[in-house]
Formats: sequence, structure tokens, C-alpha cells
Amino acid sequence: MDYRIEKDTMGEVQVPADKLWGAQTQRSINNFKIGAPASMPLEIIYGFAYLKKAAAHTNHELGGLDEEKRDLIAQVCDEILEGKHDDQFPLVIWQTGSGTQSNMNVNEVIANRAHQLAGKTIGEGEKTIQPNDDVNKSQSSNDTFPTGMHIACYKMIVEDTISGIKQLRNTLHKKAQDFDEVVKIGRTHLMDATPLTLGQEFSGYVSQLDHGIIAIEATLEHLSELALGGTAVGTGLNTPKGYDRKVAAYIADFTELPFKTADNKFEALAAHDAMVETHGALKQVAVSLNKIAHDIRMLASGPRSGIGEIIIPANEPGSSIMPGKVNPTQAEAITMVCARVMGNDTTVTVGGMQGHFELNVFKPVMAAAVLESAKLIGDACRSFDENCAVGIEPNHEKIKSLLENSLMLVTALNTKIGYYKAAEIANKAHDEGTTLKAAALSLGYVTEAEFDEWVRPEDMTGHK
Amino acid sequence: MDYRIEKDTMGEVQVPADKLWGAQTQRSINNFKIGAPASMPLEIIYGFAYLKKAAAHTNHELGGLDEEKRDLIAQVCDEILEGKHDDQFPLVIWQTGSGTQSNMNVNEVIANRAHQLAGKTIGEGEKTIQPNDDVNKSQSSNDTFPTGMHIACYKMIVEDTISGIKQLRNTLHKKAQDFDEVVKIGRTHLMDATPLTLGQEFSGYVSQLDHGIIAIEATLEHLSELALGGTAVGTGLNTPKGYDRKVAAYIADFTELPFKTADNKFEALAAHDAMVETHGALKQVAVSLNKIAHDIRMLASGPRSGIGEIIIPANEPGSSIMPGKVNPTQAEAITMVCARVMGNDTTVTVGGMQGHFELNVFKPVMAAAVLESAKLIGDACRSFDENCAVGIEPNHEKIKSLLENSLMLVTALNTKIGYYKAAEIANKAHDEGTTLKAAALSLGYVTEAEFDEWVRPEDMTGHK
Amino acid sequence: MDYRIEKDTMGEVQVPADKLWGAQTQRSINNFKIGAPASMPLEIIYGFAYLKKAAAHTNHELGGLDEEKRDLIAQVCDEILEGKHDDQFPLVIWQTGSGTQSNMNVNEVIANRAHQLAGKTIGEGEKTIQPNDDVNKSQSSNDTFPTGMHIACYKMIVEDTISGIKQLRNTLHKKAQDFDEVVKIGRTHLMDATPLTLGQEFSGYVSQLDHGIIAIEATLEHLSELALGGTAVGTGLNTPKGYDRKVAAYIADFTELPFKTADNKFEALAAHDAMVETHGALKQVAVSLNKIAHDIRMLASGPRSGIGEIIIPANEPGSSIMPGKVNPTQAEAITMVCARVMGNDTTVTVGGMQGHFELNVFKPVMAAAVLESAKLIGDACRSFDENCAVGIEPNHEKIKSLLENSLMLVTALNTKIGYYKAAEIANKAHDEGTTLKAAALSLGYVTEAEFDEWVRPEDMTGHK
Amino acid sequence: MDYRIEKDTMGEVQVPADKLWGAQTQRSINNFKIGAPASMPLEIIYGFAYLKKAAAHTNHELGGLDEEKRDLIAQVCDEILEGKHDDQFPLVIWQTGSGTQSNMNVNEVIANRAHQLAGKTIGEGEKTIQPNDDVNKSQSSNDTFPTGMHIACYKMIVEDTISGIKQLRNTLHKKAQDFDEVVKIGRTHLMDATPLTLGQEFSGYVSQLDHGIIAIEATLEHLSELALGGTAVGTGLNTPKGYDRKVAAYIADFTELPFKTADNKFEALAAHDAMVETHGALKQVAVSLNKIAHDIRMLASGPRSGIGEIIIPANEPGSSIMPGKVNPTQAEAITMVCARVMGNDTTVTVGGMQGHFELNVFKPVMAAAVLESAKLIGDACRSFDENCAVGIEPNHEKIKSLLENSLMLVTALNTKIGYYKAAEIANKAHDEGTTLKAAALSLGYVTEAEFDEWVRPEDMTGHK
Repeated sequence: MDYRIEKDTMGEVQVPADKLWGAQTQRSINNFKIGAPASMPLEIIYGFAYLKKAAAHTNHELGGLDEEKRDLIAQVCDEILEGKHDDQFPLVIWQTGSGTQSNMNVNEVIANRAHQLAGKTIGEGEKTIQPNDDVNKSQSSNDTFPTGMHIACYKMIVEDTISGIKQLRNTLHKKAQDFDEVVKIGRTHLMDATPLTLGQEFSGYVSQLDHGIIAIEATLEHLSELALGGTAVGTGLNTPKGYDRKVAAYIADFTELPFKTADNKFEALAAHDAMVETHGALKQVAVSLNKIAHDIRMLASGPRSGIGEIIIPANEPGSSIMPGKVNPTQAEAITMVCARVMGNDTTVTVGGMQGHFELNVFKPVMAAAVLESAKLIGDACRSFDENCAVGIEPNHEKIKSLLENSLMLVTALNTKIGYYKAAEIANKAHDEGTTLKAAALSLGYVTEAEFDEWVRPEDMTGHK
Repeated sequence: MDYRIEKDTMGEVQVPADKLWGAQTQRSINNFKIGAPASMPLEIIYGFAYLKKAAAHTNHELGGLDEEKRDLIAQVCDEILEGKHDDQFPLVIWQTGSGTQSNMNVNEVIANRAHQLAGKTIGEGEKTIQPNDDVNKSQSSNDTFPTGMHIACYKMIVEDTISGIKQLRNTLHKKAQDFDEVVKIGRTHLMDATPLTLGQEFSGYVSQLDHGIIAIEATLEHLSELALGGTAVGTGLNTPKGYDRKVAAYIADFTELPFKTADNKFEALAAHDAMVETHGALKQVAVSLNKIAHDIRMLASGPRSGIGEIIIPANEPGSSIMPGKVNPTQAEAITMVCARVMGNDTTVTVGGMQGHFELNVFKPVMAAAVLESAKLIGDACRSFDENCAVGIEPNHEKIKSLLENSLMLVTALNTKIGYYKAAEIANKAHDEGTTLKAAALSLGYVTEAEFDEWVRPEDMTGHK
Repeated sequence: MDYRIEKDTMGEVQVPADKLWGAQTQRSINNFKIGAPASMPLEIIYGFAYLKKAAAHTNHELGGLDEEKRDLIAQVCDEILEGKHDDQFPLVIWQTGSGTQSNMNVNEVIANRAHQLAGKTIGEGEKTIQPNDDVNKSQSSNDTFPTGMHIACYKMIVEDTISGIKQLRNTLHKKAQDFDEVVKIGRTHLMDATPLTLGQEFSGYVSQLDHGIIAIEATLEHLSELALGGTAVGTGLNTPKGYDRKVAAYIADFTELPFKTADNKFEALAAHDAMVETHGALKQVAVSLNKIAHDIRMLASGPRSGIGEIIIPANEPGSSIMPGKVNPTQAEAITMVCARVMGNDTTVTVGGMQGHFELNVFKPVMAAAVLESAKLIGDACRSFDENCAVGIEPNHEKIKSLLENSLMLVTALNTKIGYYKAAEIANKAHDEGTTLKAAALSLGYVTEAEFDEWVRPEDMTGHK
Repeated sequence: MDYRIEKDTMGEVQVPADKLWGAQTQRSINNFKIGAPASMPLEIIYGFAYLKKAAAHTNHELGGLDEEKRDLIAQVCDEILEGKHDDQFPLVIWQTGSGTQSNMNVNEVIANRAHQLAGKTIGEGEKTIQPNDDVNKSQSSNDTFPTGMHIACYKMIVEDTISGIKQLRNTLHKKAQDFDEVVKIGRTHLMDATPLTLGQEFSGYVSQLDHGIIAIEATLEHLSELALGGTAVGTGLNTPKGYDRKVAAYIADFTELPFKTADNKFEALAAHDAMVETHGALKQVAVSLNKIAHDIRMLASGPRSGIGEIIIPANEPGSSIMPGKVNPTQAEAITMVCARVMGNDTTVTVGGMQGHFELNVFKPVMAAAVLESAKLIGDACRSFDENCAVGIEPNHEKIKSLLENSLMLVTALNTKIGYYKAAEIANKAHDEGTTLKAAALSLGYVTEAEFDEWVRPEDMTGHK
């Protein structure tokens, strides 16, 4: 491979000739051979592109960055956002905990690419743009990385996560309406209970997801606060007056999202409670989705020896050995996602609790975990929706047979003949394997007409 | 011991003669010998007392419960709330997951105590009040337990947790103001960095707690939703029309808290995402407190071989072997609380994700975990505040000596002579063990007058 | 209340006149009002009693403690172990993270009680025994607390946890043998699959618990290492030569358990990986128990609208509203225990990871979590065993009907007519709602005689 | 793109013409668009390659697979293991929870590639090898996936994880020996304590890692048990007699690792406690590494305002704004890895606890989490070793100055003049800012000669 020499304050480093990055990026590649390569999420890089462009504009207005440099920086940032340089960001999550090396990766790529755009050859002539003095002007890794990660996470949650949850929620809501008249046996403690409609059962799922979306949205305010302008320790050293608010306004403008400067930059660098807060809400949704998906696979279990009250789409042959078997694979995929999200919550908690003094140095792992959870929940909701939920249909025959066979309809008699006599009827039917009606009549506690009038499942669902 | 005979639908049980509970409570004692006795939190019992009283009133208005019964039930509930029957609730958390047995414990105690209040002897004569038909009227364990647990958790959070956090927050805020002029070295990556004021450092803690309080409060809306009125499976079977809203209004009235009936009772029985949501916010505060308390103990470390920038109160002899040693014991207590709260978050998550069909049967363990976390955070904040935070004082001498000795003040020169020359100065001083000024002058990059004018820590804190 | 004055290096403190503790215990009560009172587990106190007695003996032999003092200390330790002073240990977990205050609580109680045993009145005359110079001789909180906690946890695990798991394991093993011939439908993905015997299904549970016991036992070696002899920082300062081995031998002798001195005392004070290791195994068992108990409640679900392949004992009325209903309450209790144990694992992890330099200061919370998990698992296994597992019986009728109705028996034809034709048969039967045999004959792929010979569930269990 | 038509029991599917996979793989691509593509770890695929080859050999010997088919299958497996087909496995973790689709992916690739090796064109002519009837002969997804995942995890742990930990352990052990005579101040509660040597401090780290390796190794026995031979539900349906032991022997032979058939196949399919057990040990090591790495960064903190007792290598410029600053980046990377591993432990726990009946369907997420943790720990240990630990040197000057300045040396006087007088000396020195010696002489409790003889840090380390 061909190399060129790049240098930084520690000296010279060999960099592949065809790459835009510089010395510090290369040192990080050399020093952190941990896990899969290039694991730093591209969303973070794009977050950096927004903020570098915003900083260039702000520095032009307030800090003396000349117009040409501003425009070159902005042009490269736009190229990055178009995905033209995705292969120029080779670093891993497992680097310095402030993300300094990814910040420098971005600075170096912008500077070198700007040099090209200015018609020069990388490594030749004076640098058109300095990675530190120009691209990183009025910035520090300590305030850029958390800014980039807030931008990345906020965008992902708004564009992917919430939209995915809403898509699934809307389908479940439609099913709840469609199944509004389908009276079925209820189950508590996994045991037969009084009836409800299948629509009511699904309405509970909708309510869970509605609350989940509200919970996620409630965390966005904290996540909208940007650290940028705090520089090294939160004091804003080396930034021009008014820089923090203006740069946040540019970011809000470029992303079309309501970002604002953090009122307290010391928190914004040293603690990432906003990430903990947001992931807490993602975890809540994982808890909801696990309940919903597990219910649905149990309801679909069978075809003959399970519950079988609903039918889910058959998307693939279910078994490599058992012909004719169709499995709830979408439910399995999404519940595995839930397990991952719950694990990510521990990761985010453990990272978040260990900020020290002016800096939390678990930024990359926290960012990666939040982004992964946000992406997986969005994707899994869409996949579950499109490949399972939309196709759910009641198995009317099975629902009816289980309902009619149930002993729990006896509860309707509680208010008529009292709890103890009702229990006696249920126990008799259970012991003798008969219907409730037979037991009730045999005990003489009700007449047939009374039974038929009082024990009507459709009247027991509170549903009209 | 003396016993009397109580009975339920399964038959007779021996109950200690001096106890108010009945057959089902006793069965639970006999069948669940798990862990410490009486581990079901009393706060849950008090939550039940509120709701049983509210149900009695509502049943009187809407459901035909006569006035005498209503008043007897209400009177016993008031006695329970006054703490007069604390020893009548002997059950453990590790019972049925719907909390049925604690619901029956409350029903039985109310019925038997009402019998006494009516001038009768327990076990003699017709029951004045029936535990099922009267006390539990229009209710099920499935909607009462989650109602009781929401009442208990909401009260605890409002009365204990938030007030405790606020007390600590206010002290830290006062310290932040008091230490507003105390310029000190910053630390990032645990390494020396540019200066800030001790007040700024503390302001970050205040901001964390402010965000934490907002986060907790944002979860209260979901927690204010009560399951009561859903009865067995969420349909409201066996409740009179309008019952759910009226009973919630009574509870709001009795507790003076903004409780309301849950719009969707199916979620309210089958999922406890509200508990997951609330505990997520408690966990976030634990993350914050861990950061704050750990910072404070590191700042206080020494007295001679640590950082020693602040002095914390000496509340007890620190060591049984090392005389004169004083330890950051309050920080240790509160960080242990944080570890517990983080563990409780896993417990609540694992419980919350496993609702099945119409009922989540991890109610008691979830309730106990949320209550424990809420109580511990409130208590620990108060203890940390009163025994540590209020007494924190700067060690001005140490702060000054560390600041003056620092190499990181060189950053002030970045904007004057450029990043590379500034780095050269810092490196020279570091290598030769000299001051920055000596290195700067020796390199000839600045004059003495320039150095003195440019490198002023108090100008680097952005603080005026 | 009557008080007497006790003092320590910081001055005087009022102590209730009827209590044996001294100044440092009282300071801790005053300074740590966090959570429920006296939450420090008594098992830890008993662990201290063993080690204080062992230290007294060792100090007599090696360190000049006179015989009278040795005997007085030993006598009080024996009284503590007999439970005579349980109310003299009022401290909470949320104290100093080294457990110093509980160490001093024990030292003070021993000293004061020894004074009484010597015929004196507490607070009068020269102390017969000094809490620091005598009771704590050759010790530090830093090595005593971890020693006490290892003793407590080891004992609990050997005496309670493993015995409880084994009791349940043996019952399940007996059931596996009893159900050896009961052929039933298998379920994978919760869907009908090829048959196995109910005994085989239970044998999987037995194998899980067997592996779990092995896993717990594999951690005991690490847990048997005692910190005692490390004193303040692990160097053994102020201990006589040979002290560490001898004192461990005494502890082994008194407890009849294979304790030994830790080879490396620096680890033994600064890290509690042994606790992390042991709790990891407890958590593994919780994972197993959750699987087992949840399977059992699903197998028992119904009585009419679930799976209903087994019958579990009815121990209590199941519902306060639905007469005749019996719930899997023991399964609910034990799965809630599992949720708690999983949470405790997070707590132990978070505590364990934060040791700093020569001392981990999350000792009390880690000890409490391990003890709670160990106790709950033991108790819950016994409760589940005695109130549920022993009474499990197959519901032969239901098992037979589900088996005969199953489509998955088609798998037996794979090796006879190939996967694709077998699938065709199953699909036809499924679509038309017929039996496999009807579909197979109708397709002409097998003769009736072949079908009857090839499709025999009892031949598909590999069971002979 | 060019496509060809592949079909399975559900019908036809378009597959890219240049790919070796078939219909079921393509269906999975189409149906599971969740997260990053191709996230199923290649190590799992290689594990499949070992087992498919072993199955082909065993089927030849016991089950009638002809020699030519055996050899073709084996040849493709070898190609896969050489990495020649890495791009033929495009599936994600988030698929069916049994990993069926990855099993079929392997089956299809082997069949199609075998067809090529037999000189045919994919999609033309009768298939040389059937994916189900030949490659998957005597197998099910339900026993192959867990077998593949055990092979993958066992290999990774033995080859990467343990070797990485040992490499770091050996360096730390050498440092412990090198620093054997370097007496320094100890720290407990982060406060100054009695002295020890730097070598002793490092020996604690070595002991932690030694225990960690033992703990990991103790879990390998369970992990060595292979599910293969259990087929669909654990009964071994459709396998020839003796198949399970022979196929495990082949796997052991091919991998040169001590695999064996699981005694109980029902556990091996339905529960993955072995994975929970192994990950528990990985998590323990993460706890250890977090302690070690955090200690090292605190010891290296400064350069002037921290502890600064050791010097770590400077591998890169530390700050984009603060020249001359060098950060503990390797410690940050490895502690972030620890946070991830702790999160993965939650994921594995949540997946492991949810097995249902005859199958746990969280296999892919559990496998991915264990592999990630195993890989990250190995890599991070090597990176931390080579880029940090090997270069650690004591800062003798700082160590000496902190030691001499310490008040905690007073402990040496406890056994000479008693605890209370020693405390008085320490308190006096502390209050007056003097040395211990000055305070001691001024109080008259010791002579100068006594002080010099008794208070010798090097005598307080128990180190001779």
C-alpha cells in the first residue's frame, strides 16, 4: 500500500495515501485494535458534520474565520452528510472515552478534503485549512462529541424510532377496532378468567405504546440541549461571546430540529443523564414490546395444542425438520431486540454513572448503545408490523369454543346469588367435567331462564 | 398460642386468636415461607386503606352498600392509616403475583375489625361485614393491588423522594453560589485541564438534579392512572356505571393527590409500564447522585496524598485502626444506595416485561422495588445533605497551590500564539519540571508582560 | 429514655442506658437515617462473632491477649451466635462502605457485655475489655467486614441455598421418573412439535438445576478465602507472624466449613470479585428457576382454555372475584424471586466494579444482596417444592387428546417418504382440519398399515 | 441485478444470481430488515461448518449418506472455514430465535456450492446435494444452532479471551515484581492510609485476573456439552443409534477442543444456562478490569494536580484544545468495554430466562452477546497491555514525597503507645499542618530515637 506522512504534536505517522484522514486518526487505528473495525456509528459522524458546519458559520460571524474557509468547511460537511466519505471514518467505539479521536478524524478529513477542493494535493503545500485552528476552532472534543451524539440520537429517535413505534401502534389500533366484537375468554395468572373482547385485549397494547411514545418524547427536551460552546471544561474558554447560542441555532436550522444550547455546560460535558433518560424510555418501550409480542405468540400458539385464538402470517417454512410448521418468527426477532435494549440500558447506566469531575469518558459506548437501541426498536416495530401485525386475524372457531367451554362465566352470577354459591357451581362443574349450566341447574340455585339471561359473555365485557 | 377457626371457600384454617386476619391471610402465611416475614411494604397497605374507603363510599352512592357498612369500612381504613393495625399485615412480597393475598388480608382485617367496632366478637355471630361481598365489592385483586401500589409509590415519590432531592439540590445550589469566585484547576480524563470555579463545578451537580426532578415529575402522569374499576380482567365486570371515575375522585380527595382513573384498564392490569417509567427516572437520579457523591469524595480525598480541594465534615472516627482518619462515609452510603437502585431497575424491568394476557403477576416485587428506591433516594439525599453537603468548605490553600502549579493554563495562549507553540511551551515545562512562565519566556514566544496579562486563571472561567 | 455517656476519639455521645453498644454505633444511628432500621443482616453479625472469637484465640496464642480476655470475648461471641443479643445491632446497610461502623458495633457490644460478665456495670470503672485494643486487636474494619461477609454468605449458601435447590431438584427428578412413560406433544417456538415424554421434559429441569448446583459450588473456593490478617490495606500491619493462617484455621474449626486465608490480601480488601462470582452463579440458578416455574405454570394453565397437561395443587382460593379459580401462586412467588435475584446481580456488579485503590467501599450493599439472593432462592425452592412440585400430576386425558390431535407426528414420515411429501400431508390436514392419517391416505403416499406402523408417538421419543 | 429462482415448501423466491444461498435465506433477508446487515457473527457460521462436516461423516458411517455426498459437504465446510464464502451469510441476528434461518443459510450454501464442485450450474439439473435431506440429515435447527454457538463461544474464549487476559496478567505480574520495593502510601476510602509497596498494589490486580481465569475455565465444562443429536425437541428423533456421541467426537476431533455430547438434550435445546454461566464469568472479569484500569488511571492522574504516582505511555496527543496533555485513553477504552460486557450480561440473562417448553428462542442474541464480550475482553486486554501496561513506570519522586508527608504512618505507633495517643498525635499534626514527628515529640509520647525506629514505612508493608 502507498503511504504519505502526516504529523501531529507527537511527530510523524504513515497514513494510506488514498485516505483523507491524518496523523491522529491513524494513531487511533494503530492503538485501538478492539472489536470489529469502524464500529463508531456513522450517525455520530453525520452529527459532527452538522456541528462543524454550524461552527464554521458561527466562527465566521463571531470569531474571524474567513469566508473562504467557512465555505470550504461547509462544503465538505455537506459531502459527508451526502454519504460521500463514509469510508473515511475507520475508528472504533473503544477509543478515548471523550471521542477525541473521532473528533480529530472529522477535523482531519475536513481539512484534507478542503485542501483538495481548493485544488491542492494532500500533503503538498501549506494546509488550506488547519484541522485544529480552523475546523476545531472554538471547540474541544469535550463539547463536540456530546453535541454530535445528541444530534445523532435525537434524529434517530424522531425519524426512526418513534415513526416505527407509531406504525405498529396504528396497526394494533386498527386491529383493536376490527376485533371490537370478538368476545373471548380472558386469562389472568395464565388461567381462564372472565371474558373480554379481542379488541379490548389489543387496546391494552395500543395504550402501552401510546404511553411509551409520550415517555420517549418527554426525554427529548433534555436531549435537545447541546454542549457545544463549553469547550474543554464547560467554561467556554476560547469561544467568542454569544457563540454557544448562535452555533446551536445554526444546528437547529441545518437539522430542522429544536436544538438549543445547554444552560449548564458543566453538566453537558461531565454527565450524560440526558442519554440515560432517553434510553430509560427506550427500555420502557422494550418492556412493552416484549409483553405485546409474547402475548401475540402465545395467542397464536398451536396450531392444535396451544391457544390458537389468532392466526398470524406464515412468512417462511418454520422448521428444517418439521414440515408444515409455521413459527412466530417476527415475535422472536422483536423480543430478542428487547433483550438487547434491556442490556443496553445497563451499559448506558454503567457508563453514565462514572463521569469524573469535568468529563464523562464513556461517551462513545453510551452513544453507540442509545443509537443501537433506537435503531433496533424502530426497525423491529416496522418488521413486526409489516410481516406480522397487519396480517393478524382471529380464529373465530377456536375463540368461540374456548369461550363456551369456560367455567369463569360463573362470575356473572356473583351479583345474583353471591360469591359462595357461585363458587360451588364452578367447583361442581370443574370436578364433574360438566358445563356451568348443568351444574347450576343441578344445584338448583338458578333456573334455566335465569342462567341464560344472566350468563351472557357478551354482557360481561362492559363493552357498550 | 390460642387459635380460632376461620374459613374460606376451601375450608377451615386456624388463625391466632388475637389477630384480625382471616383464612386466606393465614393460608398465605403457611404457604409462603420465603425471606424475611411481613416484607410487604406498609405503604401498600395504606394505599389499600385509601382505596377500600373510596370504594365503600362509591359503592354506597352507586352500588347499594348501606351507610352503616360504608362508615364501618371507612372507620377501619382510617385506623389503618393511623398506623393502629400495622401488625395485622404479616404477609410477604413473595406470594401470588397479583397480590391477591394482601388484598384479602386487608379485606379480612377490615371485616373483622368492623365486627369489633359493631360491638361483636370476632368469630361469633353473623359477620357484620363480608370481606368479599362488602369490603371487596366492585373490586378484584387485579385492580386493587395495582391501585394500591400506584397510590403508595406516588405518595412516596412526592413526599419523600422529590423533597429529599430538592433539599440536597438547594444546598448544592447555595454552595455553587458561595464558591462562585473560587477558581480551581479543572480535570478531564482525570487529568489536569483548564480552570473553572468551584461554584461552576457544583452548578453542574445542581443542573443534574434539576433535570432529574423534571424527569421524575414527567412520569407522575402515568403513575396517577388508577386501575380500580377494571376488576378481574379490565372490563369492569360487576361494577356499577360511573364507578371507576368516582372511586378515583374519592382517592384523589382522600390523598390530596391528582389521581384519576386509567383510560385503558387492560393496560392497567396487564402491564406496569408506569412503574417501569417511574423507576427509570429514579435510576437516572441514582446515576446523577453516583457522579456527584463520587466527585465530592475525590475532591475531599487526602488529607495529604489526594486532591484535597474541599473539606467535608468529620462525623465519626473513620477507622478502627488508623487514628485521625476521617472518611467520606455519607458519599459511601449514598453510592451504595445508587447501586441498589440500579439493581432495582433490573428487577422492575424483568418484572414489567413478563405480563401475560390480562394480568402482570410481578406486582408485589415491582411495587417493593419502586418503593425501596424511592425511599432510599429520599433518605440518602437528606442524610448526605445534612451530614455532608451543608458542611462542605473549600480548602483554599490547596486549591490555590494546585492551580498555580498547573500546566494547563497554557491553553490561554492558544488564541494568542497558536496551538503548536502553546503545546511546545507546555511540553518544555513538563519535561523540565519548571513553571509555564519560565518555559514560555525561555522559548521567547511571549514577553513577561504578555504572559502575565494573558495567562490569568480567573479570566479563563468565562465567569463574568 | 435513660441514657449513659459513651465516648470515642471524637468525644461524648448519649447512648440508651439499656443498650450494650457504644459511641461509634450511636453516631452511626444518628448519622445514617436511611431506609428501614437495622437493615444490616444478622448473618453478617454472626460472621463477625465467629471471627472475633477466632481472633481472640489467635491473639492469645500469638499476640499477648491474656486468657481471661480471650475467654470473655469468646463467651460473648457464643452468646451472640445463640441469638441472645440480636437487638444490639441496630445499624443499617447504608453506612460507611467498609462496614466500619458495624465492626465497631460488634466491638462495642462485646466489650460492654464482657464488662457485665466480669460482674461490672457498663459505664462504671475501667473497661474490662477495650473495644479497639482488645476486641479489634490485630484487625481492621477493612479485613473484618469482608471476612464476616464471606462467612455469612458461605454458610447461607451451603446451609440454605444449595439444600433448597437440591430439595426441589430431587422432587423434579422423582417426577421425571414417575412421568417416564407419559408421551405428550412437544412444543418449540410455543408451537406444536414432535412428541416427548413428560418425564423427559422434567429431566431437562433436573439437568438445569444439577448444572446450577455445580456452578454455585465452583464459586465456593474463591468465597472460602478470608481477608482477615490483611488489616488496614492488606499488608497485615500490626498482626503477629502467622496470624492470618491461624485465625482462618480457627474460623474453619468454629464454623466447620473449609475457610482459609486469602493468598492475596490486597485483592481481598480492594475487590470483591468472589462475591460477584458467587452471585453470578445464583443469578444463573434464577434464570433456570424462571424457566422451570414458567413452564410449569404454562403446562398447568386452564383449566379449560389453556394447555392443562399437568395439575398442580390448589393451596388457596385463587381469586377474590372469580370463584373456583386456582392460580399457580408458587410459580409466581418464585419467578418474582428470580426478578429480585437478577436485580441483585446488577447491584453486586455495580458495587464490585467500583473498588478504589486498597479498598472497595460497597461491602455492605454487596453482602446484603448476596445474602438476600441466597436466602430467597433457598426458601423459594423449598416453598415451590413443598407447595407445588411434590403435588404435580399429569392430566392424562388432556395430554392424550392433544397428542392424538397433533399434526407434528408427520415428522415420523420424513425418513420414510421424504421431507417434501411429509410436508404436503401436514399442510393438507392443517388446511382441511382433518387428521394426518386421513390426509396421508387421501394423498396416497402411504398405506393405512404403513401409517399405523410408522406414526407411533411412543416410538418418536427415543425413549427406550 | 440478475436473479435466479429458488424454491422451498412455500414456493418460489428470487435470489441474486451470483449468490450461493437459496430460498429460505432470501426470505429471511426480505422479512427481517432489522439493524445492520449480516450481523450474525461469522464465528457462528464457522461453528456450523464444523458441525455440518461432522454430521456428514457421522451420517456416512451410521446413516447411509454416501461417500461422495459426505466428501462434497466436507469440502464446502472446509472452504467456509478458510473464509472463502464469508459474503454468503447475509442474515441478521434478529431473525427466528432458533436460528433456523442461519441453519438453512448454511445448508443452502453447502448444497449449492457442492453442486458447483460437482461441475454443475446452480439452478440447473437435479440438486447434487439436498439442503434438508442431505446437509441437514439427522439434524434440526434446534440442535444445530446451539451446537454452533457453543463451538463458536468455546473457541473464542479459549483462543482470544483467556489468552488476552493472560497476556495482561503476565505484564501486571512482572510489574508487581519490578515494583516490589517501591514503598508508597496506601489509600482506603480514597483517603490516605498506611503504606504498602506498589508491587503489592499490582499483585492484587494479578490475583483478580488469576481468579477470573479460573472462573472462566470453570464454566467451559458446561459449554463443552453439545446439543447435536437432540434434533427437534431433544429426543433425537430421526437420528441413527450412537449418532450423538459420534458426531460430538468428530467435532472434538476437527476443532481440537474437548467437546462432548450433552447428557441431557432437553436442557441443551430449551435452556442456555451454559451461556449464562460463561457470560457470568466474563462479567466478573469485566468487574475486575474496571477496577484495575480505573485504579491505574487514578494513579497516573495529573501530571501536577492529581495523584501522579505512576507514569503511563503517551500514545497520542490527548486533547484537541489543551496542548501537552496526555490522557489514559487505553483505560478509557477498556472501561467502556467493561460497561458493554455488563450490559451484555443483562441481555444474556433476559434471553436465558425466557426459554419455553422444548426450545429457547433467544439463541442468536445470546450467542452474539457472548461472542462480543469474549472478543472485546480479549482484544481490550491485549490493547491495554501493549499500549499501556507494559510501559507503566513508577514516578519515584512523587511517590516518595506523598509517603513522607503522610499522617497515616502514625498507625505504626498503635502497638507502641496505644490507639488513643496515636490518634492524638495524628490529630495534632493534621490541625497544625506539621509532620507527625513534630507532633509526636511535642506531645512527649515518644523520643526522637523511638519515632525514627518505630515509624518506618518500609517496615509497615509486611514485606520481607
